[in-house]
Amino acid sequence: MKALYFDGERLRLTQDHALSRAEEAVIRVIYAGICGTDLEILRGYAGFRGVPGHEFVGVVEKSRDSELVGRTVVGEINVGCGRCRYCYAGLERHCPDRTVLGIKNRDGAFAEYINLPEKNLHLVPENVPAKVAVFVEPVAAAYEILEQIHVDPSMRVAVVGDGRLGNLTAQLLSKIVHDLCVYGKHRRKIDVLKSLGIKAIHVDEQREPHSYDIVIEASGSSSGFILASELVKPRGTIVLKTTIAGETPLNLSPLVVNEVRVVGSRCGPFKPAIKALASGMVHVGKLVDGVFSLDEHEEAFALAAEKNTLKVLLRTM
Amino acid sequence: MKALYFDGERLRLTQDHALSRAEEAVIRVIYAGICGTDLEILRGYAGFRGVPGHEFVGVVEKSRDSELVGRTVVGEINVGCGRCRYCYAGLERHCPDRTVLGIKNRDGAFAEYINLPEKNLHLVPENVPAKVAVFVEPVAAAYEILEQIHVDPSMRVAVVGDGRLGNLTAQLLSKIVHDLCVYGKHRRKIDVLKSLGIKAIHVDEQREPHSYDIVIEASGSSSGFILASELVKPRGTIVLKTTIAGETPLNLSPLVVNEVRVVGSRCGPFKPAIKALASGMVHVGKLVDGVFSLDEHEEAFALAAEKNTLKVLLRTM
Repeated sequence: MKALYFDGERLRLTQDHALSRAEEAVIRVIYAGICGTDLEILRGYAGFRGVPGHEFVGVVEKSRDSELVGRTVVGEINVGCGRCRYCYAGLERHCPDRTVLGIKNRDGAFAEYINLPEKNLHLVPENVPAKVAVFVEPVAAAYEILEQIHVDPSMRVAVVGDGRLGNLTAQLLSKIVHDLCVYGKHRRKIDVLKSLGIKAIHVDEQREPHSYDIVIEASGSSSGFILASELVKPRGTIVLKTTIAGETPLNLSPLVVNEVRVVGSRCGPFKPAIKALASGMVHVGKLVDGVFSLDEHEEAFALAAEKNTLKVLLRTM
Repeated sequence: MKALYFDGERLRLTQDHALSRAEEAVIRVIYAGICGTDLEILRGYAGFRGVPGHEFVGVVEKSRDSELVGRTVVGEINVGCGRCRYCYAGLERHCPDRTVLGIKNRDGAFAEYINLPEKNLHLVPENVPAKVAVFVEPVAAAYEILEQIHVDPSMRVAVVGDGRLGNLTAQLLSKIVHDLCVYGKHRRKIDVLKSLGIKAIHVDEQREPHSYDIVIEASGSSSGFILASELVKPRGTIVLKTTIAGETPLNLSPLVVNEVRVVGSRCGPFKPAIKALASGMVHVGKLVDGVFSLDEHEEAFALAAEKNTLKVLLRTM
């Protein structure tokens, strides 16, 4: 099958990549989303070798569960060992021996087909188009915030970053709190947020230092973390949503003096994310900037890496 | 009066420093402790100019509250404006306009006398010697951890750092959890911990990566933060107890991937700290390495900065 393979130096299209996990379901990929983590992987993050891609929607082509065959699905990306204390506690995504779709020891979705265990799959409701369902994974990542911290409707929330994840996070949290502001750097992305009814300003505009109970860092840059430290109230919470390859020089003293909490946050629950997309509570139509075939991958990744781009999809059928 | 004055470059003894806050109580200092933050201040932390020193015990010499005069006291170091939302919420130590004894816009305790408002003072019980009471402030800082996070007796706790604060924190938390280990770098300090019945090992000995629910970073070094990130379980908590001047190159990705919480933690409640010292639950006798007069300040600070030193006191009467 066709797949995009990363050999540690560059991403190239191969025509004869093979699936390797015969005991798992086979899913024909429809769309795969290019995420910030994928761009970081191509810069060396996590030392991954193989087929990247972890946001996908597809159709089950083979499975031991005949009910699943022919159904449209999305899939949770962490596959635990099933035998450790994390797996027993329902926290497979923290299993030390886990594989992660397109990120750790498991080929991902920039390919015509993928394997995943049946337990990782979630059915996509019929009213949700594939081009919407491909956003379930990043919307789930936004829901993870609600699994980790208490967001009280009276709290002031800032989102640092106007990109894909910042946008989805702001859409979700603005349904819970009335006072939310996105701090962005890109006029076009700020306009998209505004058109969705979300308050969004440029980072160079008037800031309100130490005035937010919760600040979500979704910019993926070290300057974003510094801005978050500036915006958060004493005893407030910064949620780190993005992984950055390499080291960043940081001054941790303000976190100690202001007794700030920093909460790392990663993959989240799929079920509420599917519901939010099915009901239209989270809109993704304005986020897709381009759809490319696997053959056009160079163009796709170039567009995904551009500052003004929100989301690029690969279509594989 | 005699005082040690820091002019931004060096600390020198002045003979004629004056108190400036006539509306506040006047306290004759007996002992003042040299803390890691003081050493950082002399390296430029917080841009402080004036008399440092925030750990003290003294006798009230003048006060509008006649009941206080002649009594031995310790004092909370943050003085809020009394009019903002933090002060109203009982969080004076987060008031944006606060002064802080010997740290921010307020002369501290490396002097014969200090000013503090009466509301900041706590009486020292008669059975607590002054040389013990001078530890109330750092023991309160250890109690702050319990004010911020839930420490469940079944949790595994690691303390990174075998110094003053690491020792006091380990003494306190080992009364709550049965499974606690201090990771240190100094044989002598490790031996002091062991003599107090606390499990303590050298950082070069066998480590147990990703196996602690809570890791207290009390080493004041960036390598301590890196070790803490290694020791903490996925979804565990790192408590940052120490302020470090300047920037540290840090890789935040493991915090995101493992969904770790980092909690900055500073000054704490005095009342439980006084009780812990009065009852002997926290022992400080083995921690004092030297007592010096203000005239001997150079020797005192040289000893305080040595790697094997636990605590140095200044006596001012």
